[in-house]
This record gives sequence, structure tokens and C-alpha cells, in this order.
Amino acid sequence: MSGLFITFEGPEGAGKSTNLQLFAAALRESGCDPLLTREPGGTPIAEKIREVLLSHHDEPMCSDAELLLMFAARAQHIDRLIRPALDRGQVVISDRFTDATYAYQGGGRGIAVQRIAALEEWVQGPLRPDLTVVFDVPVAVGMQRARARSELDRFEVEQTAFFEAVRQTYLERASADPGRYRIIDASGTLDQVAQAMRPLVAQVLEQWHA
Amino acid sequence: MSGLFITFEGPEGAGKSTNLQLFAAALRESGCDPLLTREPGGTPIAEKIREVLLSHHDEPMCSDAELLLMFAARAQHIDRLIRPALDRGQVVISDRFTDATYAYQGGGRGIAVQRIAALEEWVQGPLRPDLTVVFDVPVAVGMQRARARSELDRFEVEQTAFFEAVRQTYLERASADPGRYRIIDASGTLDQVAQAMRPLVAQVLEQWHA
Repeated sequence: MSGLFITFEGPEGAGKSTNLQLFAAALRESGCDPLLTREPGGTPIAEKIREVLLSHHDEPMCSDAELLLMFAARAQHIDRLIRPALDRGQVVISDRFTDATYAYQGGGRGIAVQRIAALEEWVQGPLRPDLTVVFDVPVAVGMQRARARSELDRFEVEQTAFFEAVRQTYLERASADPGRYRIIDASGTLDQVAQAMRPLVAQVLEQWHA
Repeated sequence: MSGLFITFEGPEGAGKSTNLQLFAAALRESGCDPLLTREPGGTPIAEKIREVLLSHHDEPMCSDAELLLMFAARAQHIDRLIRPALDRGQVVISDRFTDATYAYQGGGRGIAVQRIAALEEWVQGPLRPDLTVVFDVPVAVGMQRARARSELDRFEVEQTAFFEAVRQTYLERASADPGRYRIIDASGTLDQVAQAMRPLVAQVLEQWHA
């Protein structure tokens, strides 16, 4: 039995985290106990790096430093958590992974795709998710939901154009590799989204047993 | 007038920091006001990354994460402090820079030189120090001096073999590029070392005026 690496992607307010819990519960009902984690973070050191990334600072963070911090946290996350779990045959579900880096630091901040791809290769070697679920929601809806629930972090204070670029990058990456990506329309009610997720639960169980 | 980028390298206990202050004082006497900084660190965000790098943690930090954190701090340091100062024509003296990464993460931790060189190129482009002063001291002497003065950080608790590899890497890099590097025997008294530094003060003033 081999592990399966699944990532959930999308902006704040798309319902990623809630649906991740529902998805994991459905897997557990079928006897599959997934490891749930998140980026940036997932281990004590990676969570410390997350704090530096998400906090407001007295100086602007340059985009290269931001990108390198993301990959530093990811290297630790892969080494300590993701790879050992996959080696044990576990299903790993991460709330965000490298697609978020392409969307936020690439689309949002304008870092060249080739510079991100170079670090992806440097850090991950051949490791890529087996399945990436993109929760898609119009920017205005996502921003409204995010603002309703808590204080905004260093990314959430960005403007509409930033989030439009983030959304566009997710959609472009998904359409370029339909074998790996599934786009979920997350603008509806929680029930509607959960309904749309049902075929994915079956797909994951099948791949996991294979 | 163009700036000049000088780095001081060597293990803890080699007298780098004390000599950096003496060196800067000598430059000031001749009307040159250098910017003094250090790595990892040098800006508020880079100093936060330094804390993560030097603190003791509840889990081991993987060597790739450590290397990426070093370069994240460096990217911020270059963008916010080093490059603007050089562009203004200032002399910049940094207590450690990328040679320390080759020595500690390469020699000490065993990361392949090519992997470090790839990140150096990614972060710095063509930026390299104009002059690198390597303070060389037998490992036992350096360790004894470092232990005498404060609690040891995450690097200083390493064993003799680690520091032998660090020293060896510094010496090899210096002998491969004698145009850029000067090795200073730091095993003597502070007076002896300051004496050995004197020709470098003259050299820097000459290059800076050129």
C-alpha cells in the first residue's frame, strides 16, 4: 500500500479548511485515517516560520525573502511530516502547498514562474501532490467571508487585483493539468460544496486501496 | 565613487567582531564611514529569522530548511540594507556572509556545494564581496574562547569534527581565490591581530577612493 498526497487550495473564505474536515471525516468512515496538516506550517519549526511570514513587520518583506521562507517551512514540513507519512502508506491532506506559492508569490507578487519552479525542484525533487482540489470563489465573495471572521494577516490585507491574480493562477494551473487538479465551485452553500466533493471521496478511497 | 563590500569570516572565538570594530574605527579616522552589519540578520525581519536559526527547538531542523532560512535572511539583508548602501557609495562591512554558509551548511552539515551555489546565484545574482577577511584559529582555541563568554547557540554546541570542517572550508575557499580573500592568523593576542590588519585598512581606503 502506498501513501497518497492530497492538497486543498484556494483563497481565504473559499471554505477550504471546513471542507478539509468534512472530507477527512468521510474518509475515516471508510476506514482510512488521513494525516491532516497545513502550510505554511505543519511542524513546530515550520509554524515559527509561519509566524514570521504572516505577522506585520516594521519593514516591508522583499518578495524573494518571502518566497525563501515559504520553501524553508516546506522543506521542514516535507522532511519531518509529509514524507514519513507517505512512506508509511498514509493519506496526507495539506491545507495549501506549492500551488499556493505559485498563486500568491507568483501571481500575486509577480515573481517569475521559473524562479519558483527552480526552488520547487531544489526543495521537493520529484515530490508533487497526487490530487489537488482548488476551491474557487469570486474574489469579492472570498474577501467578504474572510473579513467577517477575524483580523487580517499580512496577505489578507492585499487589494482586489492581488486576489484576482491569485485566483487566475490557480485556475490556469488547474486547467493545464486536469489529471491532477479538480476545481470545486465554492460560491454555493456548505451543503452544495460538500455534495460536489462526494465523488472525490470515492476516488481517493479507490486510489488508496489500489 | 562606488561602494565596497567587505565581509569578515571565521568561527566564534576568532575575534571577528572585536576586529571589525577596530577596523571600522581606523577607517573612520581617515574619513570613511562604513556601514557595519551582520549575518544572519542586519534588518528587523532578518533578525527574526536569525532567532529561528539560532534557537534550540523541540525538533531537529533539517539541513535544507536551515540553508533556505539563511538565504531568506540574506535576501532581505541585501534588498533592504547592503544594496542601497553600496549604491550610495558606502563601504559595507558584514560580520559573516555567504562564505559562512559554505563553511557551516556545506562543510559542517555536508550539504553539496552545488546546492549552495544554486541558491547563492538565485538570491545574489552577481553580487559578491570585494574583500573577505578570514580569521583563522585552531578549533580548540576558538571553542575555548566561545565557551568562556556566553551560553552556546544551536551551532556552537556542535562537536570538534563540525568545526574542523568549517575551518577547512574557509581555508580552501580562501586559497582558491587569493585576489578576494585575506587569511588573518587570529591565534595571537588582540594587538598582534590588529597589527596584521593594518595593511588591509590602507588597501580598503585606496580601493574606496579609486
